[in-house]
Amino acid sequence: MPETASTPSGGTSRESFGSRLGAAMALRGPLCVGIDPHPALLAGWGLDDDAAGLRRFSLTVLEAVGSLAAAVKPQVALYERHGSAGMAVLEELLAVARDESILTIADAKRGDIGSTMAAYADAWLRDSSPLAADSVTLSPYLGFESLRPALDLAAEHGRGVFVLALTSNPEGASVQHVGGADSVARRITEAAASENRRYEGALGSVGLVVGATVGSALTDLQLDLQAVRGPILAPGLGAQGATPADLRRTFGTAYPQVLGTSSRDILAAGPGVPELQAAARRTLDGLRGA
Amino acid sequence: MPETASTPSGGTSRESFGSRLGAAMALRGPLCVGIDPHPALLAGWGLDDDAAGLRRFSLTVLEAVGSLAAAVKPQVALYERHGSAGMAVLEELLAVARDESILTIADAKRGDIGSTMAAYADAWLRDSSPLAADSVTLSPYLGFESLRPALDLAAEHGRGVFVLALTSNPEGASVQHVGGADSVARRITEAAASENRRYEGALGSVGLVVGATVGSALTDLQLDLQAVRGPILAPGLGAQGATPADLRRTFGTAYPQVLGTSSRDILAAGPGVPELQAAARRTLDGLRGA
Repeated sequence: MPETASTPSGGTSRESFGSRLGAAMALRGPLCVGIDPHPALLAGWGLDDDAAGLRRFSLTVLEAVGSLAAAVKPQVALYERHGSAGMAVLEELLAVARDESILTIADAKRGDIGSTMAAYADAWLRDSSPLAADSVTLSPYLGFESLRPALDLAAEHGRGVFVLALTSNPEGASVQHVGGADSVARRITEAAASENRRYEGALGSVGLVVGATVGSALTDLQLDLQAVRGPILAPGLGAQGATPADLRRTFGTAYPQVLGTSSRDILAAGPGVPELQAAARRTLDGLRGA
Repeated sequence: MPETASTPSGGTSRESFGSRLGAAMALRGPLCVGIDPHPALLAGWGLDDDAAGLRRFSLTVLEAVGSLAAAVKPQVALYERHGSAGMAVLEELLAVARDESILTIADAKRGDIGSTMAAYADAWLRDSSPLAADSVTLSPYLGFESLRPALDLAAEHGRGVFVLALTSNPEGASVQHVGGADSVARRITEAAASENRRYEGALGSVGLVVGATVGSALTDLQLDLQAVRGPILAPGLGAQGATPADLRRTFGTAYPQVLGTSSRDILAAGPGVPELQAAARRTLDGLRGA
């Protein structure tokens, strides 16, 4: 059974992102570690809030968790804060992860239309781009279909996307819950399900971002995440309030698709590599036992 | 009458962005020139699609239209395509514009929550940031209120934001029009109106992005843009299909707040500075006469 994306252009022989991520989750467990060089974490590690500090922080996290987590998720905003020097550090982090076959999710939440959206796709999902990641997070305020250039480029190059669907910040409801039975979040979810029909295998390459602490909103809004057949990136484990048991309760039958994401809880254990690894293992044990 | 933002922290003595932009629009006319180094435009100018080509393109456009337009709007995606080298060119463009007091709108469409949103605000709206612009475009899928760190930092530093509200791409309606009389676009518009109450003077510093070709959607969705009392960034002039007369018809009583944005129509006249200036003047004449 071919597991590559079934696109006509056949730009690559790389396995599809969904397939690669599914294999990593089966092998290592459903943990994604956020690489979030927040100023407070840098200070806690005794590092300066500059490009050198970012670099040391980023490469240390990768060294510690690269062989434990199914994927790592650098938070792009925290590199962008340092301008081009920060983006150069992100490039280095992504290059090292590529060399070591560690799956990456660039948490960029990009979104635009037409040729501008194509440029964002180019930046994060094109083979020769200095910022090429295995996948990127996208924001659909301009409509799910506005993301088309990224959906297609990802499919061609064996990469993936995670589209913002339903988040747990209280103000998110003012957009995502609007529309009653045909809510914005439900439209995004159904569009992702439809898009994943182009992929064979258990897991498509079009994932969603759904907060780990959304509570009953999934059932209230009647979102069928299992039907999406894509990975669910669920930020909010640990410091943000969700336990692995919450994750299983919230996601129910879609739990096997869920990639639990922890950042601060693990990162605060640094700068020692053994301490970071112990924290990641604890989180993984929780997710496996959940 | 003080025109600075009335914030308690008083981080700056710079005039508010809304006031500075209003003055520039009154003096020069309501034109914003997009700086969009698309691959096709670079090729048309005889430039390579690399950082050196980007730099030549960007600085030429700034030289040509910096004294004609009320503001320039670099499209961040087209710099990000080139990774950190492209972002370094954007830094240089923003620095030259700062030195020459040319107002800038970084078209980045960023959006996130909490400390991550604060990091994006830091990147684009903090005085000492290498990417500091006079204003930045934001995307509100996570709720208008999730943009709070940028709204507050902009107010403190005399900078501004343009929040995506209603766009003219056909797929935009699947999010923005949802909710009937209490649509997503209307919620964003009303939140911006409320936010602008912190600003004195004619124009607040919280603008909206509303497509120049939205047609009757403004009245269909009952959006009161005049009540927003902020600048309206209206992309779509020229190559994308709208004439200055369309702009006046679409925006009606809110037309004095509208900053018409043209990119390709003007940029395609390059690489000669006189030709770029002639194209910008033609567009300006159209906007003034509309």
